[in-house]
Amino acid sequence: MLLCHNRIKPFIHRTPILSSKILNELIGADLYFKCENFQKMGAYKIRGATNAIMLLSDAERKKGVVTHSSGNFAQALSLAGKSHGVQAHIVMPSNAPLVKREAVAYYGGNIVLCEPTMEARISTAKKIVEDKAAVFIHPSNDLNVITGQGTAAMELLEDHPDLNVMVAPIGGGGLIAGSAMAIHHFAYSCDLIGGEPFEVDDAYRSFHSGKIESNITSNTIADGLKTVLGDQTFPIIQKFVKDIIRVTENEIIEAMHLVWERLKIVVEPSSAVAFAAVIKEKEFFKNKKVGIIISGGNVDLKKLPF
Amino acid sequence: MLLCHNRIKPFIHRTPILSSKILNELIGADLYFKCENFQKMGAYKIRGATNAIMLLSDAERKKGVVTHSSGNFAQALSLAGKSHGVQAHIVMPSNAPLVKREAVAYYGGNIVLCEPTMEARISTAKKIVEDKAAVFIHPSNDLNVITGQGTAAMELLEDHPDLNVMVAPIGGGGLIAGSAMAIHHFAYSCDLIGGEPFEVDDAYRSFHSGKIESNITSNTIADGLKTVLGDQTFPIIQKFVKDIIRVTENEIIEAMHLVWERLKIVVEPSSAVAFAAVIKEKEFFKNKKVGIIISGGNVDLKKLPF
Repeated sequence: MLLCHNRIKPFIHRTPILSSKILNELIGADLYFKCENFQKMGAYKIRGATNAIMLLSDAERKKGVVTHSSGNFAQALSLAGKSHGVQAHIVMPSNAPLVKREAVAYYGGNIVLCEPTMEARISTAKKIVEDKAAVFIHPSNDLNVITGQGTAAMELLEDHPDLNVMVAPIGGGGLIAGSAMAIHHFAYSCDLIGGEPFEVDDAYRSFHSGKIESNITSNTIADGLKTVLGDQTFPIIQKFVKDIIRVTENEIIEAMHLVWERLKIVVEPSSAVAFAAVIKEKEFFKNKKVGIIISGGNVDLKKLPF
Repeated sequence: MLLCHNRIKPFIHRTPILSSKILNELIGADLYFKCENFQKMGAYKIRGATNAIMLLSDAERKKGVVTHSSGNFAQALSLAGKSHGVQAHIVMPSNAPLVKREAVAYYGGNIVLCEPTMEARISTAKKIVEDKAAVFIHPSNDLNVITGQGTAAMELLEDHPDLNVMVAPIGGGGLIAGSAMAIHHFAYSCDLIGGEPFEVDDAYRSFHSGKIESNITSNTIADGLKTVLGDQTFPIIQKFVKDIIRVTENEIIEAMHLVWERLKIVVEPSSAVAFAAVIKEKEFFKNKKVGIIISGGNVDLKKLPF
């Protein structure tokens, strides 16, 4: 983790940690928000993408990388590729918003459109891997990516080693699995809690059933959390996460509004899920030092839920 | 200024300075945004209010203070008063939004409502001064307030002593007059430029006519900038401000959108005026190191212009 952090440090921001007296009073706890919305390209994803790209061999770099994502990882891999002279091929569903396609193009990613199904995404990515001998990098289910994502929690713990509990949102599980590794590697006695929307509660159900579950519904505003756990992220989560708290869409929107209003920062809905979990179970968090990972700030300002 | 900064330091935040590669590329300059939206109560106004309160005599403290404001200074004086055991009486127009009245009450200010005219504000404040022997503190036209407001620019210059130019919005002129004092006192060779909405361009016209002008229109989204210059602020502005750039309502909204989108911070419309001026006259700012004061972040999230 320390090696990884030293490796990627020149290519990422050390993001600020914010607090608010009013939010502390609301929960009755000391809250420390790690603001990855201020990260390069607007989300923590650049950490893992950078680590994965930097660990490629020279031969692999020449062949390029592939991922499928319509979200922040698409931009992250494009930018990390650009910074290291590696062509990133990004498989995106044909219905991906124009603003997201433009962002990927801005960072130099080569967009390959496919039908908007998970099967089409996977087969299209596979074809590029075969045609170009490019390296596939999964947005979350990849140990190099997971380790990179964990450096956000690592920085938070460096600045606040006495945290009692840390909370992160769960989508594919890369962020929380990386956070688990950061806590474990540095032997901090800090509990790790996940936040997840009821609408895409695959991680909650997987956590309790002991096997990877899929999502039955996906109608959530937290569009970064629609993906499911994988065989790399799930075992780490099973072993190190203490609990997963589910929140409703209204709770996400209210938490997002509070963060904007009180911390004066722009965060995307997925980012508000961890704080929504803290509000929901505030008795548990009372009188504790709580680290909350704000995962990103890429949101369409013309389509706000409030 | 240094004495003032040492005096108020324990009661204010040293706010962060943010930059964005994309915004730098847009202007072709190095932009440093001094983020007073992260200041206590959400705006730079707490600096001047704290300085004014701390310079009261013991006898004056017991009598309390009075101001008339429906904006950030109302909250600032209430909070500064609360921190120093001084009762603040805040004259507010009867049509002031509930959210602003609640904020003043939250910080312990005693709200006195009056008719929504400037005459009623002044006479109501005068009556409290007479009845309670309280000290009147003007939101901008007061040298102790001006000096306090200047500490934001002072901090910006401490961190970036090589700024070529600084830009601040102009309402009553307290912020820019204080910024002028900071530049002058520390003998930095940094130009100072004001940004002002066309709709309330009293400062621009005063600057050019040589006497204090009033506003003919006031239909601006930048509600913090509707006030006019006073006999304390105007001479400082006349002497030290290099130029005032006027911007349209659309230019303000576009600048505000860009700041939210790229810096990921919540800023109020008045705060976006300085950056709007930079965008408008970008040839002038090209290849320069530009400090931009983001004055505050108190905005009704349910009434955004985009």
